[in-house]
Amino acid sequence: MATVEELKLRIRELENELIKSKQKQSDAEHHLRPKIDQMSAEVVDSNPYSRLMALKRMGIVQDYEVNMCIYYFYDTFILITACSCSDEHYTCCHSQKIRSFAVAVVGVGGVGSVTAEMLTRCGIGKLLLFDYDKVELANMNRLFFQPHQAGLSKVEAAEHTLRNINPDVAFETHNYNITTMDNFTHFMNRISHGGLEEGKPVDLVLSCVDNFEARMAINTACNELGQIWMESGVSENAVSGHIQLIIPGETACFACAPPLIVAANIDEKTLKRDGVCAASLPTTMGVVAGLLVQNVLKYLLGFGTVSYYLGYNAMQDFFPSMAMKANPQCDNRHCRRQQDEYKKKEAEQPKQEVVQEEEEVVHEDNEWGIELVSEVSEAELQDASGPVPDLPEGITVAYTIPEKDGASGETVEETDQSLEELMAQMRKM
Amino acid sequence: MATVEELKLRIRELENELIKSKQKQSDAEHHLRPKIDQMSAEVVDSNPYSRLMALKRMGIVQDYEVNMCIYYFYDTFILITACSCSDEHYTCCHSQKIRSFAVAVVGVGGVGSVTAEMLTRCGIGKLLLFDYDKVELANMNRLFFQPHQAGLSKVEAAEHTLRNINPDVAFETHNYNITTMDNFTHFMNRISHGGLEEGKPVDLVLSCVDNFEARMAINTACNELGQIWMESGVSENAVSGHIQLIIPGETACFACAPPLIVAANIDEKTLKRDGVCAASLPTTMGVVAGLLVQNVLKYLLGFGTVSYYLGYNAMQDFFPSMAMKANPQCDNRHCRRQQDEYKKKEAEQPKQEVVQEEEEVVHEDNEWGIELVSEVSEAELQDASGPVPDLPEGITVAYTIPEKDGASGETVEETDQSLEELMAQMRKM
Repeated sequence: MATVEELKLRIRELENELIKSKQKQSDAEHHLRPKIDQMSAEVVDSNPYSRLMALKRMGIVQDYEVNMCIYYFYDTFILITACSCSDEHYTCCHSQKIRSFAVAVVGVGGVGSVTAEMLTRCGIGKLLLFDYDKVELANMNRLFFQPHQAGLSKVEAAEHTLRNINPDVAFETHNYNITTMDNFTHFMNRISHGGLEEGKPVDLVLSCVDNFEARMAINTACNELGQIWMESGVSENAVSGHIQLIIPGETACFACAPPLIVAANIDEKTLKRDGVCAASLPTTMGVVAGLLVQNVLKYLLGFGTVSYYLGYNAMQDFFPSMAMKANPQCDNRHCRRQQDEYKKKEAEQPKQEVVQEEEEVVHEDNEWGIELVSEVSEAELQDASGPVPDLPEGITVAYTIPEKDGASGETVEETDQSLEELMAQMRKM
Repeated sequence: MATVEELKLRIRELENELIKSKQKQSDAEHHLRPKIDQMSAEVVDSNPYSRLMALKRMGIVQDYEVNMCIYYFYDTFILITACSCSDEHYTCCHSQKIRSFAVAVVGVGGVGSVTAEMLTRCGIGKLLLFDYDKVELANMNRLFFQPHQAGLSKVEAAEHTLRNINPDVAFETHNYNITTMDNFTHFMNRISHGGLEEGKPVDLVLSCVDNFEARMAINTACNELGQIWMESGVSENAVSGHIQLIIPGETACFACAPPLIVAANIDEKTLKRDGVCAASLPTTMGVVAGLLVQNVLKYLLGFGTVSYYLGYNAMQDFFPSMAMKANPQCDNRHCRRQQDEYKKKEAEQPKQEVVQEEEEVVHEDNEWGIELVSEVSEAELQDASGPVPDLPEGITVAYTIPEKDGASGETVEETDQSLEELMAQMRKM
């Protein structure tokens, strides 16, 4: 039998072991960096913002963080943004530009999770995350989530990782499907009241969802609220994607030029077969998230040219770019209302209109003098063409049937023969 | 004083607490998924490869995993790749295509770490990581590393995270600077012997370093070994980057058209000032890593068009693309040797030469019929031109001095007047 001394020795051993074990356990927590009150440009290894603050010194952004100086002058508070703060006579307070923004990310999957991580690492003020999915091992072929998070809700797992990366960001997560009636109302409410200062709207909504129903819900909400948002998407075969900036009333909304599946009112769920999943690649999703957040930074911090639409074709490394105006015949009544309001505003400020027109040129430099030219001359075109029909203004014909061989200009559509009869004729040839 | 019973009770309590603590500690490890012998296309949430195997069904890659069938036929072993394995009479073994490749990543920073993560999530066979840097909080504005890893070596921290994400990948890490004499020899050795099967070379080397000295070291090693590699880079102002495929002897190496700083033999360390750091963004680095690994996948798995050079200008969302042939006057003797060998091989296989020429067209489709056109006609050019000098074959003049105003075709270079005299004349005008 053990003596009291032996037992006491064992207790001391166990107590020591327990302390060590608990230390290891909370090791990660102990390493968490403390919150930072003010972003500094100081170049020391321990400063998580030094490489971002360098953007100002490099002349890329006017202000990554803005020093805001409030001083008291003849009984009046005067506010100066971007002050140098060298004057010690006044009371200075500091406000951070990137930190003053709240962004909502809808869909925290292959694109949305990386989008949220990039914004977190840039030191955004507040992130609102919406998703109703759980992390699965099948998601491990994209960046961000890790195998040990399988089974957790995506928003919960994301918040845990992101808060660990940057405790300065405020997080708000909603583990629900935005397309159901109740959730949609709540979603609208958070978009319009969940800004950095509660009660104010968010600065931007980012759509990182994988289905048209959710995109249409975001579109509906943003049209109604006049909320600027950005769309993103990756193709089912994993080798192309796009990002798009939507300014209600000004640029085409998602319903202005809907994909066929939406226009034809097909239930997309009927298109997904059991046992068949879409392909996805961490590369394509990483590139799309990168292009999306780059566009967000350019839009919020005011540098470079914000893209209206930017595509990514991975097979050819081709990046189409374009801008689409809102469709006056859009199905969405709030889009039409926003268009009317935009027109009114434009009419009131004729000078601003010119500036906006200039902004719509996406690629201003054309170093190689590339032009779109017709391979045939106007005269050749005239000779080769049939009679041009009488068309409403703004509509042109791509081609007409030439009157060669003395034919009467009869087109296939004008024949009385059925398709079957024509095919039978073809077989005889 | 405590009784023996009380002491024993305390021991039991401590033992239980210790077990619980250790369980929590290794919680992450318990959640680690087991290794997977063979990639499956089965669409279940627990399959980490389902979205990647779908690439084949989508018609993007011919084989993400190849089924290799070896069977015994009339006393002979016959090997069929990409067999359907429906025949039960033969002995089948399976080999994975993506798993058969080894890739070396030099530099595990903002681009390299994301590059390594993407390859890991794609299920690459083996990764060799080279870096001598430590993780710092100042790196937290890019993806991948987390604050609790500050102070760890980058390769050690990366391996830990990556192994956790995908235990099927083999990792080899080297915590050293490849540019010192001894390390360079070891680096060369691992490139030429550290393949998936020890003794064989790696399939690809990726340069993700942030200085020219390291790039030149990789260039020297790859030229000497005839090792195909890809270069990547991000500008100091964080808003542009590029990737480049280098095939020794065939395409321009890093020394064929060196940056000014290398050509002028300037020590880049003298350019870096204390207290000044380069700007960096998780967006630009994520996009460059995505474009790099996409090019790697296209090159290794044989889909799409592999880019020789692809640039990314974030300010304008402009993506220049080009191909550069090797420079016969390259400073690097191994590059010139590889060029000679490539020419010999080309001469021996005249048929293959045509195929290679075709491959160099980067953008084959030209949906919009974009052409490079001259703004002046041939006749106008003739009228506006002066005498065309006698030039060696292949060299053309960009412009000549027109003989307008009855001038004798005298050019500025031919005058006897000094620059000062000419400037004095201009001031009098």
